[in-house]
Amino acid sequence: MFNQITIIGCGLIGSSVLRRLKNNRSIKKIVTYDNDKTVSEIIKKTNLSDDIAASPSEAVKNSDLILLSVPLSSFESTVDSIKNNLKSGSILTDTCSVKKGVNEIVKKMNLKNSIWIPGHPVAGTEKSGPNAGFGDLFQDRWTILTPDKNISEANIKNLSRFWESMGSKVKIMSVEDHDKILSLTSHLPHVIAYNIVRTVMTGNEKTKDDIIRYSAGGLRDFTRIAASDPKMWKDIFIDNSSLIINAIEKFSKSLEEFKKAITEKDSKKLLEIFEKSKEFRKSIIKAGQDTDKPDFGRK
Amino acid sequence: MFNQITIIGCGLIGSSVLRRLKNNRSIKKIVTYDNDKTVSEIIKKTNLSDDIAASPSEAVKNSDLILLSVPLSSFESTVDSIKNNLKSGSILTDTCSVKKGVNEIVKKMNLKNSIWIPGHPVAGTEKSGPNAGFGDLFQDRWTILTPDKNISEANIKNLSRFWESMGSKVKIMSVEDHDKILSLTSHLPHVIAYNIVRTVMTGNEKTKDDIIRYSAGGLRDFTRIAASDPKMWKDIFIDNSSLIINAIEKFSKSLEEFKKAITEKDSKKLLEIFEKSKEFRKSIIKAGQDTDKPDFGRK
Repeated sequence: MFNQITIIGCGLIGSSVLRRLKNNRSIKKIVTYDNDKTVSEIIKKTNLSDDIAASPSEAVKNSDLILLSVPLSSFESTVDSIKNNLKSGSILTDTCSVKKGVNEIVKKMNLKNSIWIPGHPVAGTEKSGPNAGFGDLFQDRWTILTPDKNISEANIKNLSRFWESMGSKVKIMSVEDHDKILSLTSHLPHVIAYNIVRTVMTGNEKTKDDIIRYSAGGLRDFTRIAASDPKMWKDIFIDNSSLIINAIEKFSKSLEEFKKAITEKDSKKLLEIFEKSKEFRKSIIKAGQDTDKPDFGRK
Repeated sequence: MFNQITIIGCGLIGSSVLRRLKNNRSIKKIVTYDNDKTVSEIIKKTNLSDDIAASPSEAVKNSDLILLSVPLSSFESTVDSIKNNLKSGSILTDTCSVKKGVNEIVKKMNLKNSIWIPGHPVAGTEKSGPNAGFGDLFQDRWTILTPDKNISEANIKNLSRFWESMGSKVKIMSVEDHDKILSLTSHLPHVIAYNIVRTVMTGNEKTKDDIIRYSAGGLRDFTRIAASDPKMWKDIFIDNSSLIINAIEKFSKSLEEFKKAITEKDSKKLLEIFEKSKEFRKSIIKAGQDTDKPDFGRK
């Protein structure tokens, strides 16, 4: 597959790739870099890297695959610092949750040696950092690649095989489709989860303890989603803002109709909404995205 | 505690009480009734009742504790059919998720023999029916009792002990506080979960398969909540409509502010929202309402 891989950014995603590579050693040399020294120390201690480089530009030398799993806010400076050291014919990819912004950054740089294929493993937990990573994070999850039309089949296949070796299934789509779909399946749910926690917290200081005590009735599950990495989500909301705003507006419109049905005590309309949701849930289970086991709170 | 208990309605909640009673036999005689014969057959087959009565009025004769775990829509007719057969000094309680409506129904009936103490075990799963019940459903969860001020301490204590024998912790509060708190911790999250599924489903027929495929990024968890029993939730939304409408309006106002921060790419405001949510999540975990283990999709 690849002789040498460089991973820049060793948080939840980067360290999960490293853990999987450790169990499934298909690449000869693994080079890593993280601008946070305490992260690099953890990578060293857990023996996940063959070579912890002193700088991003050192890290990418001679590598056939360069995986950027850095926060979006340091993406541009990272690409800028490595662009002149990339090996000819190497593949450059990333793991950012929004593809439009990173794609524009890299294209602007006009890379000559490296083949740019944006990527996004749709996997994660509400935890972040190198200690939160684990080798099965990508197992049976989807990784989306959004290559330009002029990228060769062979290069796409090579990168796809890499993600398959991580346990992932791979789907190719356009940058635009990716950002639209993710605005609905991931970004909107996070906006809503943050907002529900915000709503419940505001102006209810007196009953805060009671609210926490009785959160098992639904709120609890939203707080988990709303505990995701703030910096990463700030970047996502800003980078995909116009599609997220569209999704919010659609949500608000639907909520107004729903509110009307509640105000008018319209049983028929309410039942229709609920039955349709139940149907959608069945599709999710059928697609293997969740189990049908009831969830009554984790212990 | 009690010599004889009658449970009317043997779905998720009723059958979970029966299963716990079977493991922990502190009551001499257990009588049940369900207006769905297939439910009664399951209760008989699983040997959960000493006496499956032919009618609600037969079922309550000589019972010291009557637990109504029927849907709200059949609550009034059930109370009406048993009111003349209640044993003197018996306790009548229920498990409905909204307390105002059932309280008004029972008070209107002007019961002479029985002591009415509304109750709500804040526990459940997205599943319903007698096969979904299990004896540990109430373990470490809260049951809220909302007795009138004139109800004696001794009677409240008796019913509290019953719920404690189910593994539950017990809290006493007013009907008004209960309905307000639950509108925030349970009813609003359900409105929102239903609405997000509705938003994502509408007008995206072309990308439906992709949406399901990439639901692991947040949407999946909402679909579980939105798979709850439609009839029960229709009743709850209608019964607690005015407090739920208040909660929705608060939510929408907060969402507008949030949308503004996204539109203006206001990093500072966004980070502030996220950090506060993370803090609230910590309180939920500290209160033992969830674990701190990351959730990366159940297998």
